[in-house]
Amino acid sequence: MSRVSERTSRLSGSLIREILAVANRPGVISFAGGLSDPEAMPLLALAEAPGALGQYGTSEGEPELRALIAERVSGLGRVCSPEQVLITAGSQQGLDLVAKLFIDPGTPVVVEAPTYLAALQVFRLFGARVVPVPVQPTGVDLDALDRSLAQSPSFIYTIPTFQNPSGACYSVTARQEVAALIDRAGVPLVEDDPYRELAYEAVDRTPICVGLERAPWIYLGSFSKIGLPGLRIGYLAASADLYPTLVKLKQAADLHTNRVGQWWAVRLLTDPGYPAHLDRLRTLYRIKRDAMARALDHHFRALADWSLPAGGLFFWLRLQHRVDTRTLLAPALERGVAFMPGEPFFPQDDPPLGSLRLSFSGVAVADIEPGLVALAALIRERIA
Amino acid sequence: MSRVSERTSRLSGSLIREILAVANRPGVISFAGGLSDPEAMPLLALAEAPGALGQYGTSEGEPELRALIAERVSGLGRVCSPEQVLITAGSQQGLDLVAKLFIDPGTPVVVEAPTYLAALQVFRLFGARVVPVPVQPTGVDLDALDRSLAQSPSFIYTIPTFQNPSGACYSVTARQEVAALIDRAGVPLVEDDPYRELAYEAVDRTPICVGLERAPWIYLGSFSKIGLPGLRIGYLAASADLYPTLVKLKQAADLHTNRVGQWWAVRLLTDPGYPAHLDRLRTLYRIKRDAMARALDHHFRALADWSLPAGGLFFWLRLQHRVDTRTLLAPALERGVAFMPGEPFFPQDDPPLGSLRLSFSGVAVADIEPGLVALAALIRERIA
Repeated sequence: MSRVSERTSRLSGSLIREILAVANRPGVISFAGGLSDPEAMPLLALAEAPGALGQYGTSEGEPELRALIAERVSGLGRVCSPEQVLITAGSQQGLDLVAKLFIDPGTPVVVEAPTYLAALQVFRLFGARVVPVPVQPTGVDLDALDRSLAQSPSFIYTIPTFQNPSGACYSVTARQEVAALIDRAGVPLVEDDPYRELAYEAVDRTPICVGLERAPWIYLGSFSKIGLPGLRIGYLAASADLYPTLVKLKQAADLHTNRVGQWWAVRLLTDPGYPAHLDRLRTLYRIKRDAMARALDHHFRALADWSLPAGGLFFWLRLQHRVDTRTLLAPALERGVAFMPGEPFFPQDDPPLGSLRLSFSGVAVADIEPGLVALAALIRERIA
Repeated sequence: MSRVSERTSRLSGSLIREILAVANRPGVISFAGGLSDPEAMPLLALAEAPGALGQYGTSEGEPELRALIAERVSGLGRVCSPEQVLITAGSQQGLDLVAKLFIDPGTPVVVEAPTYLAALQVFRLFGARVVPVPVQPTGVDLDALDRSLAQSPSFIYTIPTFQNPSGACYSVTARQEVAALIDRAGVPLVEDDPYRELAYEAVDRTPICVGLERAPWIYLGSFSKIGLPGLRIGYLAASADLYPTLVKLKQAADLHTNRVGQWWAVRLLTDPGYPAHLDRLRTLYRIKRDAMARALDHHFRALADWSLPAGGLFFWLRLQHRVDTRTLLAPALERGVAFMPGEPFFPQDDPPLGSLRLSFSGVAVADIEPGLVALAALIRERIA
């Protein structure tokens, strides 16, 4: 074997990829992925894409798309100009740029526990020392957050709205208090907001970065949950001190984001039917969420605790018996059901046991109850 | 300013981006970029792209495209399977993955001098100690290569066919000798081959990796020079020992490459008109190359030395007076001509002075001579 970088020794085997590979087999009812329902996806209509898109573009992204995004982010209360917007290859690339910007081996980084697995992967790849702060249904543990900020992290990473995997949505107060703590510490905020349009209840979704007065910030967004993930279009907006370096890092990563996808995103956002598309998508997912909520009520009451997520794609279950849910996966697959074990979402080496993530977006409504019945039966057998 | 990574201190300001920004102004005759001629670009025909491309894809890439590329690379003599092919967001992303795979701060890396600027940028960003080996029109200095390999570099990066910026094309013997040296040292080869289809003379273009018997290898290719760079589709093939780590790094970088561009690349490669498209593109560029060769003969004979490039996009001029060509750029732009100074392409901190790169691909034939007349006049004034 060649001599490879130290970094690669921190490259975790991807449990998610392995799970998704089997979970997507025909005949498996999969609560594992966060895939979009094809019914919820807008049409891929590219016939009118102009030929000029074939030429190289700018690293920052298409001006029209940047302007639309600046308008939207400004509309949320975080006033920013198109010159603060960078188009990325999905928000995963935003995380890669964040890691390159901030992380040297040993750099402390604050994350929610549990948190988005692929963010953990890339932060660890670059050598971050991850400092966990417990996340609760309506916010984080503020004392723990305060203690973590005292460790002078290079940034804090949060998904305050319909969090992956926990489904948490920070309350108005939690958002304000977190912003105040971050501002006081002067620690950069990296706020990931891919699920914000998937709201099934009227809840506050004001980005935390709106409440900042002095701390630097990066706000990550994506078209993957409301549009077409296969086009790989995401974006970030950043405070003026961080933005120029992010653009140079983007240029070194892949020159620029594919222009056809950017053109398509402009069409989506400016389509008069866009609000109706979002309504349809929310209705479709709300029906699935409610079906899952009912089935959980019937079959998991004695087995687990959970909260009804106000938006997003996930239910987060905490089993009453603290069984390592990774050991349940193979037998569940044998019975034709897939889910995502909760343990890998925790940044700790020794994660708390007994949680799991159930996604409702990619499952047919009729499959939700039978899938959960099978899963509940398996859990009951295991803990008996 | 926030505390950012040590890496960002090595992020060079992008001379190229600054030059291209002014060089693309209307009224400027630009020999600076390596842009495709819009006349040479295939049509962007996406009307038939299937809606299923909107869903997430696999990190490795679309199976059909991987199979086509494996077939082509195998056809060049480097037998490989589709399972060794990874689709990337242009070959720039291939370089980012290579850097992540191999480079820790201080890692020695062998490159040609001069070499591709954006490769230098990303290798330096990750902290490589760059070891230069002089490149000549038909190969590299073999003694210098041998000495560089004795420094146990983590890999050697080369563009043996129509090199950027020098236009060099390794001879058959040079390819074999380089392969033998690399094999003996057991150093991984990273071979970048984006220009191979742009051949205007019958020259050997066998990839160096074909001649390897035991050294690990990564072969990088791109659709940007024969297709549509704005779609950002490139690829790599790699020896079996390196491939799995590259896929995990790709997944952490952006999950996968945009699927519409991959679909388009399959259509391009399988279009019955593809060979004719390549012929047309070669004819168009050959005419421009020859026009530049004639104009250089008339106006630069007393000023510079160069070789006729057998392919690719660039003439590389070595001025007889060793003036720092970076100082010529602003006055040239004032006269409405842009070129690329040669100094930044050298990895040395103290680069040899007096070289420049002239690209003919993006200039109208009628503009080539007037542009070179203006540039020659400026140089003559400066050295008088």
